[in-house]
Amino acid sequence: MSQPAKALGSFSCPLPVPASERIVLGHGSGGTLSADLLRKVFLPAFENATLARLDDQAIVSVNGCRLAFTTDSFVVKPLFFPGGDIGSLAVHGTINDLAMGGAKPLFLSAAFILEEGLPLETLNRVVNSFHKAATAAGVQVVTGDTKVVEKGSCDGIFVNTSGIGLVPDGVKLSADQARPGDKIILSGAIGEHGIAILAQREGLDLQTPLESDSAALYELVAAMQGTGARLRCMRDPTRGGISSALNEIAARSRAGMTLDERAIPVREEVRGVCELLGLDPLYVANEGKLVAIVDTQDAEKLVAAMRENPLGRQAQIIGTVTGENPGLVVMRTTLGTTRIVDMLAGDQLPRIC
Amino acid sequence: MSQPAKALGSFSCPLPVPASERIVLGHGSGGTLSADLLRKVFLPAFENATLARLDDQAIVSVNGCRLAFTTDSFVVKPLFFPGGDIGSLAVHGTINDLAMGGAKPLFLSAAFILEEGLPLETLNRVVNSFHKAATAAGVQVVTGDTKVVEKGSCDGIFVNTSGIGLVPDGVKLSADQARPGDKIILSGAIGEHGIAILAQREGLDLQTPLESDSAALYELVAAMQGTGARLRCMRDPTRGGISSALNEIAARSRAGMTLDERAIPVREEVRGVCELLGLDPLYVANEGKLVAIVDTQDAEKLVAAMRENPLGRQAQIIGTVTGENPGLVVMRTTLGTTRIVDMLAGDQLPRIC
Repeated sequence: MSQPAKALGSFSCPLPVPASERIVLGHGSGGTLSADLLRKVFLPAFENATLARLDDQAIVSVNGCRLAFTTDSFVVKPLFFPGGDIGSLAVHGTINDLAMGGAKPLFLSAAFILEEGLPLETLNRVVNSFHKAATAAGVQVVTGDTKVVEKGSCDGIFVNTSGIGLVPDGVKLSADQARPGDKIILSGAIGEHGIAILAQREGLDLQTPLESDSAALYELVAAMQGTGARLRCMRDPTRGGISSALNEIAARSRAGMTLDERAIPVREEVRGVCELLGLDPLYVANEGKLVAIVDTQDAEKLVAAMRENPLGRQAQIIGTVTGENPGLVVMRTTLGTTRIVDMLAGDQLPRIC
Repeated sequence: MSQPAKALGSFSCPLPVPASERIVLGHGSGGTLSADLLRKVFLPAFENATLARLDDQAIVSVNGCRLAFTTDSFVVKPLFFPGGDIGSLAVHGTINDLAMGGAKPLFLSAAFILEEGLPLETLNRVVNSFHKAATAAGVQVVTGDTKVVEKGSCDGIFVNTSGIGLVPDGVKLSADQARPGDKIILSGAIGEHGIAILAQREGLDLQTPLESDSAALYELVAAMQGTGARLRCMRDPTRGGISSALNEIAARSRAGMTLDERAIPVREEVRGVCELLGLDPLYVANEGKLVAIVDTQDAEKLVAAMRENPLGRQAQIIGTVTGENPGLVVMRTTLGTTRIVDMLAGDQLPRIC
């Protein structure tokens, strides 16, 4: 088997590499293959307690300040889509990773990998959108980097955004904090980002145009924190959808979960495209929604507060954390049956963020 | 003119784009084209005082802590080269950007963009090298991200590393701090990283093997700070070499500089390859060297301390900051003539970091 010399530079590999030992698109899906890669490659190498929390952000202490720190690369295709572009998406994604740890986002970095030949106008549009999204969210872009690669060596623009936020005293949200009896809350309808990207990419002619839900969630989170509700953890269901977000929490908390399908809002257009293409909306990404685990006594109060915020209008209690079947997420379907909501194995929709 | 549809996704541009309004490799060189891009695209969009310092790191204040924050993407080709690889290089580059601000590096992020089909073994080698370099430098990798793109959509592995460091009380290093009379100090021989990459990439058969000087400079910086010398600023001469680093300082400080060519160490192998290929070592990247501007009264003491450190053995005073010709870097050559050391216009060596 010949080696892809261009891709690997000088690395020489004398023996054929079995397909199972190569990177596939599913390794970037946020599903089980991503989890495998994390377990097999990254966690053993970088072993430390902060990383092992496996939350969307690291919480680190510097001179008594509790900081949230996160990074995300964005390779979304196409660069511009209904409801956003790679610039605004990068800002929202990173802000949301900080906010899911209960942190107030403060500072962002912006690192661009550009393909030779890219029109400056395209870069300008992306950078201005990045700036607009950051300003709207009250965060400053304080450091950056630009690399250029030869034509054909990247796909237009890749963006990396890292972020720093401040975690208020007493806030301790982590995926291992869910307890039996807790309620599972979803802030709104699922799957809109993934299906908007897919529709754009594949040129689907939807009767009602569908926009990505890409949005910065910190204001919603601040409103939720303002209620004093005993929040255990939050996740934004991006790659892998709410199934991955909830499976991760169930696994880390060694708890079971029961969901009620009827309580999960799905827009008609999203449901339609999913049925047409054989996709399951539970596995399709949002970029402006969150799931929260909260003490059952505070759940109604929290949902009421969320509905006051434009980003939480459709907030719902969608299920309960249970003491049974630790690590398993089970859903009561609209038909009255029960099914297991597993982690996504491969990748339904590559390059949606 | 047809549009590169794959690269630009859905972005449609009805008019031909002149070549001058497209990204070229030189925009990533660290020279004048990079500076143009910064001035025309990034600074107007992200306008704020922290970014406008144009140092290698942002210094931000969080609850009274002064933090350094930096980001860098790495697209070096080949992935593995004599003296390092994309993993160790990413760690060293980011640590050095923090250290140049006088900060103690604390935490790193690691974000990987992987090409479908990449052997897991290649990823493993890079990740282990990343970890080893971070551990050797005493920094923790606390957060990460992995994206996968289709075969042909990136070049093996791209890495982004962002970092957080702590700036000690009283330390204020910035490119605008150089004053006439200050001495310019270089920690060692120039051009080794760039020429090592070039030799590997082009299959040059050097009599003496040349290794990249890629190294983490924080220990050297700590030793320099320990002398109490009045440091004005530091830069690591990466893309664009020492010419870019010094031109940036001269411009920001509105001061002139006079360099003494005889004082600038260049290894024979580097000089030989440069002569052969028509390159100027002043424009070739290091990844384990620094230039420092220091009060003239402290210069000898500082050089002596640097020479005690393995990374500063060849430290030299290479020139003086002057009050004449603000923004201009002038060199007295070994031939006794004088020449202007300008910013690099295009890109001598693309993808060296």
